[in-house]
Amino acid sequence: MKAGIVTIGDEILIGQIVDTNSAWIAGKLTLAGFEVEEMQSIGDDADQIKNTIDHLFSRVDVILLTGGLGPTKDDITKKTLCEYFHTKLVFDDTVLQNIRQVISHFTTLNELTRAQAYVPESATIIQNRVGTAPITWFEKNGKVLVSMPRVPYEMKYVMEHEILPRLQDKYDPESYLKKVFLVKGYTESALALHLTGFEDQLPADFGLAYLPSPGIVRLRLFVRGEHRLKEMETQEKKLRKLLDENILTDQDIPVEKIIGERMLQLSYSLATAESCTGGNISHLITSVPGSSGYFKGSVVSYSNEIKTNVLHVSENKLERFGAVSEQVAVEMAKGVQKVMNVDCAIAVTGIAGPDGGTEEKPVGTVWICTIVKDRYIVKKYQLGKFREANIMRASNAGMLQLLEMLEEK
Amino acid sequence: MKAGIVTIGDEILIGQIVDTNSAWIAGKLTLAGFEVEEMQSIGDDADQIKNTIDHLFSRVDVILLTGGLGPTKDDITKKTLCEYFHTKLVFDDTVLQNIRQVISHFTTLNELTRAQAYVPESATIIQNRVGTAPITWFEKNGKVLVSMPRVPYEMKYVMEHEILPRLQDKYDPESYLKKVFLVKGYTESALALHLTGFEDQLPADFGLAYLPSPGIVRLRLFVRGEHRLKEMETQEKKLRKLLDENILTDQDIPVEKIIGERMLQLSYSLATAESCTGGNISHLITSVPGSSGYFKGSVVSYSNEIKTNVLHVSENKLERFGAVSEQVAVEMAKGVQKVMNVDCAIAVTGIAGPDGGTEEKPVGTVWICTIVKDRYIVKKYQLGKFREANIMRASNAGMLQLLEMLEEK
Repeated sequence: MKAGIVTIGDEILIGQIVDTNSAWIAGKLTLAGFEVEEMQSIGDDADQIKNTIDHLFSRVDVILLTGGLGPTKDDITKKTLCEYFHTKLVFDDTVLQNIRQVISHFTTLNELTRAQAYVPESATIIQNRVGTAPITWFEKNGKVLVSMPRVPYEMKYVMEHEILPRLQDKYDPESYLKKVFLVKGYTESALALHLTGFEDQLPADFGLAYLPSPGIVRLRLFVRGEHRLKEMETQEKKLRKLLDENILTDQDIPVEKIIGERMLQLSYSLATAESCTGGNISHLITSVPGSSGYFKGSVVSYSNEIKTNVLHVSENKLERFGAVSEQVAVEMAKGVQKVMNVDCAIAVTGIAGPDGGTEEKPVGTVWICTIVKDRYIVKKYQLGKFREANIMRASNAGMLQLLEMLEEK
Repeated sequence: MKAGIVTIGDEILIGQIVDTNSAWIAGKLTLAGFEVEEMQSIGDDADQIKNTIDHLFSRVDVILLTGGLGPTKDDITKKTLCEYFHTKLVFDDTVLQNIRQVISHFTTLNELTRAQAYVPESATIIQNRVGTAPITWFEKNGKVLVSMPRVPYEMKYVMEHEILPRLQDKYDPESYLKKVFLVKGYTESALALHLTGFEDQLPADFGLAYLPSPGIVRLRLFVRGEHRLKEMETQEKKLRKLLDENILTDQDIPVEKIIGERMLQLSYSLATAESCTGGNISHLITSVPGSSGYFKGSVVSYSNEIKTNVLHVSENKLERFGAVSEQVAVEMAKGVQKVMNVDCAIAVTGIAGPDGGTEEKPVGTVWICTIVKDRYIVKKYQLGKFREANIMRASNAGMLQLLEMLEEK
């Protein structure tokens, strides 16, 4: 069963926002057994919308649309779908009732919001429990098109609770089998060389894909069809043997979630002391539901004053070695471990850029100290020139360094 | 001049990663005067790649491709482009030299990395100064296709330094005039109603688009062509008059950047005390280059212990009112202002979910206290059910509340 995803909205084509919906929808569809053929982002333009639907209906069974359902004039998806499916808008009291309930706690009904209750007559209407734009489900020659709002949490709620169950009922697609390993200690090309023999013996219907990110390669082994389960297990065993202790985990989850799982397994508590990462490690760790069970907090010390006042880094060391130094990284880690009274700590100090670099310590110089109980490790990393990338890479490096310590014990 | 953007990679179609490249490229192309017609994400599939190029070349002048240039077997873009443009791969010593230099500080050359120096004979080769995959520029019937790596900072570097200047030289496209206002105090539909008269009188070639986000509507007035500059100014004036003090800024920048500008203008310093936002406000504020000039740091107090030990919130108040309360929000703000010795502070305490809610304080309950010198404001927000959205909305709300105080003075 094939699917296509379309995002409608000029704001995407001019680069004002990043489309995160498509990836999320693609992930859910893939797990449900659908094969996503392509994703498109197009403008709020009636002809383009109709042409894109035509093109996709010739290639896929299911089209999922997001966007263009707002109450303002630039949003034309609903009207255009009526034209495409030769139907008209009719007023739906149940939708109005739902809208009233959704907006009740923060605003009152105005005429534009009320107009959201006009829906295409020939479509199945699915209520939006968390927003004002209703979801419409069209069918044509056994194929399905669903139009959903762009707001991510509205779309996600309705996909999980309404759309995915209905699609699975209707199509019962063949499953997509995959096994993902997060592999450390290899660059992408070094890993590929290591796995040359394995790739050569893989059955033709299997795939092996490499997705590199700082410090980790995400390796995905995949095949389609429940009847390949046994072969999948055989191949998976071979891969495990070849990678062995370089496998960080066999779950396709972000590093911050692995950290969370280790903390819970070991009943450890965690805190961070962050300079150049500016709270990003703390942000990533607390993005995991239930993180309050092990994460106590963070001190973001963007100035030396905070390093001394809150983390008790010695002024002497700050002066002698500078804020970006082995010695200060260690004192930050020890300081936050003591202040927050935790088992584990990650401390990061560095120069994210674009300014602040010197010849001796160029932009991208980062010292990271990780502590587990009374053991600590401190390492220097030489990252790149770009602030955004440096913040992400230093955050990842800090979490990976802690994970390595946890596995050594 | 029209452009299309294509992202190649199965990892996108199965939802393993979010494509942020396309939005970034679209933003740059739009500002340079190109009209982005559509964006597509397709798989590592030769036929699909060729069909997509055919389709886009029938509609646009410039195609920008990212992805599929890695050293592993699943990456087939280079080979496929050779087939499409009827050319062959040849070894390029200059590319090899560049690769050696790029990898010199972290690894040595292996045969897969060396193979990156094979390039399509008929293409113009542009060196990748920050990665191993060279950039290729093809021309056909006056149209251009550029193939770039997927790694965002590699792609961004080459776009800014090489591709955009060359595209502008070649096409000299008509400029895209736009004015963006960040408008507070209106929902999207309320703002649209307020602007009905304005929209009715707008010349036909002008557009007005609404992009809502928590607490703010991003309003974009746009038109194409340098000769419309005068009319743009007239329309902009009308809009300013209608929106007046609800305009937060007339720059299309995120709230954290507005905060930074205000801090610099007023020579104020800033710190945050974060519970449910888990360091996200600090992360957003420090994502702005130069933020170390006004941001001193943050205390992320994910446990009550930290609230008392580091922020000096009284145990008595924590017990009587609970961690998510007006009183504790105020003490957190005052505490961090004192500890960090700053002019301004944002303190947030709330329940992000999915767990931790009670009948009296359901998931989404958030108290925010903002301080400017000796004045403070504390407010309660009732947000939604979704952790991710609550963290973002509470972060935004905290920054907006501070901005409002700064404007009142």
